[in-house]
Amino acid sequence: MVSSQRVAVAESEPSRRLYRLDEIHRHNSTADSYWVYYGTSVYDITDWVPNHPGGEVILRAVGGNIEPYWNIFTIHKKQEVHDILEQYLIGEIDPRDLVEGKAPNDEVDDPFKKDPERSDALIVRSSRPCNAETPKDQLETFITPSDQHYVRNHLWVPPLQDAESHRLTIELNDGTEKEYSVRDLRNNFQHHTITATLQCSGNRRAHMSAEAQATSGLQWDVGAISNTEWTGVRLRDVLRDAGLQVDELPEDVKHIQFTGAEAYGASVPAIKALDRYGDVLLVFEMNGQPLMPDHGYPLRLLCPGHVAARSVKWLQKITVSEDESWSQWQRRDYKCFGPNQRSDVDWDRASSIQETPVQSAITSISTIAKDRLANLRLAQVYGLEEDIVRVAGYAMSGGGRGIIRVDVSPDNGRTWQQARLIKDECKGSKSWSWKRWEIAFSKHDLAKCVVVKAIDDSYNCQPESFPATYNFKGNLATAWHRVPV
Amino acid sequence: MVSSQRVAVAESEPSRRLYRLDEIHRHNSTADSYWVYYGTSVYDITDWVPNHPGGEVILRAVGGNIEPYWNIFTIHKKQEVHDILEQYLIGEIDPRDLVEGKAPNDEVDDPFKKDPERSDALIVRSSRPCNAETPKDQLETFITPSDQHYVRNHLWVPPLQDAESHRLTIELNDGTEKEYSVRDLRNNFQHHTITATLQCSGNRRAHMSAEAQATSGLQWDVGAISNTEWTGVRLRDVLRDAGLQVDELPEDVKHIQFTGAEAYGASVPAIKALDRYGDVLLVFEMNGQPLMPDHGYPLRLLCPGHVAARSVKWLQKITVSEDESWSQWQRRDYKCFGPNQRSDVDWDRASSIQETPVQSAITSISTIAKDRLANLRLAQVYGLEEDIVRVAGYAMSGGGRGIIRVDVSPDNGRTWQQARLIKDECKGSKSWSWKRWEIAFSKHDLAKCVVVKAIDDSYNCQPESFPATYNFKGNLATAWHRVPV
Repeated sequence: MVSSQRVAVAESEPSRRLYRLDEIHRHNSTADSYWVYYGTSVYDITDWVPNHPGGEVILRAVGGNIEPYWNIFTIHKKQEVHDILEQYLIGEIDPRDLVEGKAPNDEVDDPFKKDPERSDALIVRSSRPCNAETPKDQLETFITPSDQHYVRNHLWVPPLQDAESHRLTIELNDGTEKEYSVRDLRNNFQHHTITATLQCSGNRRAHMSAEAQATSGLQWDVGAISNTEWTGVRLRDVLRDAGLQVDELPEDVKHIQFTGAEAYGASVPAIKALDRYGDVLLVFEMNGQPLMPDHGYPLRLLCPGHVAARSVKWLQKITVSEDESWSQWQRRDYKCFGPNQRSDVDWDRASSIQETPVQSAITSISTIAKDRLANLRLAQVYGLEEDIVRVAGYAMSGGGRGIIRVDVSPDNGRTWQQARLIKDECKGSKSWSWKRWEIAFSKHDLAKCVVVKAIDDSYNCQPESFPATYNFKGNLATAWHRVPV
Repeated sequence: MVSSQRVAVAESEPSRRLYRLDEIHRHNSTADSYWVYYGTSVYDITDWVPNHPGGEVILRAVGGNIEPYWNIFTIHKKQEVHDILEQYLIGEIDPRDLVEGKAPNDEVDDPFKKDPERSDALIVRSSRPCNAETPKDQLETFITPSDQHYVRNHLWVPPLQDAESHRLTIELNDGTEKEYSVRDLRNNFQHHTITATLQCSGNRRAHMSAEAQATSGLQWDVGAISNTEWTGVRLRDVLRDAGLQVDELPEDVKHIQFTGAEAYGASVPAIKALDRYGDVLLVFEMNGQPLMPDHGYPLRLLCPGHVAARSVKWLQKITVSEDESWSQWQRRDYKCFGPNQRSDVDWDRASSIQETPVQSAITSISTIAKDRLANLRLAQVYGLEEDIVRVAGYAMSGGGRGIIRVDVSPDNGRTWQQARLIKDECKGSKSWSWKRWEIAFSKHDLAKCVVVKAIDDSYNCQPESFPATYNFKGNLATAWHRVPV
């Protein structure tokens, strides 16, 4: 249905309306409505601001030229973003303000210029903000090397150089605040070390796009996942010290909100955040070294068993609340809708992703000739004597649910066998880490696709195919992983 | 591979070996090997005893005629059970002990003779032990009437007439014991009331058998599930009173074992059993009345979010342990294997079913003519003005994970719409109850099958079809429910 407002705008032919630059400049972040220009066109993006996937950082650009920001946040350089902008067209810049037919190209401060150096091996999906996945050969070990951990930044890496003096503010439900330096946390609370896998909600999104329909967002393959040994102090211990009754939560304490120094925010249900066996940590070390800048130095949250988007990096503030975080990333993103639903959904009707469903993926397929099978335990386990194909990968579930079985099919799902689950040194109260697995088939038995599906200890299993779990955001792409052979 | 023992038996032609009755009688429950006879044939069932689905109750029959027990436990009267017995044939009864060609038919005590009267409306799947499902029209309300609650008895209903004097023994990990009467529990601990759905691991097994392959066990339709308001005291409070440190569990406390008065036993991981938000109760009331005899009178465990098999009825003993229950029902039953695995599995390699995966089913499909749509809210919600078909049912997940969405397809999975989740009065720390749902379609849009699938708040979803989740026990039959229209 076309609204009367839309009709009115159409009737007034916005492409012919002209605006002076000083009028555009007045529609900045202090105004009631937000305008930007791109090329020589003018847009009123007021209605878009609450839907912007990057949150309120968009307010930096309003009142001026949006192009220099898109040059920095290069993730915008695609048709889909242009199409969204065109919906908000209200007119053109008055030719009196153009120089040689062009609008002035404002200089803007580049918040990414202090982003750290990164391994060349990471597979970059967007450079500003940096989103880069772990290469397959680095997914082959239980612990992922820190510099090979996938990077998922929503904005820039905030320059927080001094680990000792960085301060965390905790606001309780009664409004009182208490501050801790990282040094306080390190010195005054018991340290805990756990292993935990972080996985982006978009891991394997490219598979959903290929096997169902197009999805928005970064097109990750199998590498938006990594496993790490994390050291820190329990959130539970710190909040108790700050004055919260962590074992008998007051009625008005339902969510714990977290805010990062770059403006990212998210929250976790209080029952999980404070669970004695939930292992939610304020982390300052990964794999025995200080956190890397991309992974939250000097302090981050680790909420194991939950989608990585809740483990807020560069942690600056914790708020004990009755409400979920009000951030874009809690309320308008990291949710799934039905396969029939599109972007005009009522966002409040879907639950924010917290614990994740069971997932698995193939990370390696290699042939081993029969003359090299002597002493190869895998060949013995599966009783193979001819040329074999070794298939390996990971399996993972949320909520601390362990992986109890991995079924692999050499022939596109016609027959199945059980993979060998590789022994590891998983640390923590529950199963927070992925399970690496391997299996071997006779080369003759391979047909069409190798397929993997995993089962967790609640006997949840992965969906067979993508169409029925398709969601337009492309989140939680967990259907069976099929690799042609 | 045929073992040398098997070969030796075959060579000696067991069908011609003859045994005197007094020798058979000596192979009773006090002997090293267990013999029975059936008709005039003799069987050494020693190796079968640990695999018997009914547990050690089979020892009542050894040393004599098994037929009167099968007349009581009528669940045995099928070819599959005869086939198992034939594997253990060792010979024939000596004709000198036969009367007119028949062995004596021992009188045995019938433990079922004190089983209670039951509603005629229940759909009986086996009468001894009683296993009966809730009829579909009684699955239409949030709370199931107590006398319509599905019955899942592994053995008989033990005659425990005196609620006040029935005693519960608690054995701690250090071996110390403490006793409580039901009166003690009721008078000395805080009461809690929660709503929780119990579901048999075999619910919808008939669908798996029909859509994949034959399964063993009771062929339940959609009614091995019911929802109840339960009242009792927290297991956590009672175990703390008995001397257990419930918030900092000793290293050797991993499982809490439960034993019923009829000999049934099971266990639950200690972290769940003692979780402050786990709502594990020692229950004495259902729906505001004393427990019904079939449901555990005078005392049962309620472990919400877990498969019903862990909520032990007629509770007599609790053992705090490092080990899972050693019962048949913990170690040899209520497990799932891969679709390729058969009954020669290594039982210890599969996890016992505890929290259950997401499930849903259709319980009602009805047509409403267009002249009766006035004021029908459902028709308004879905914007329908022609003859409609209302589809309704339940959805449920384990572990306290709530149902966040129910997708229903009118055309065998080609298109989907979201069902309306019916508001209810769910009580407890987490989502322990099923969610009832309904949806309406235009009659014209129905094609082939109506299909339902549900999504829980960890975004777990049901498998599309049965073949890939088939397991020979037919447990956890949770594939999409398809009903032809």
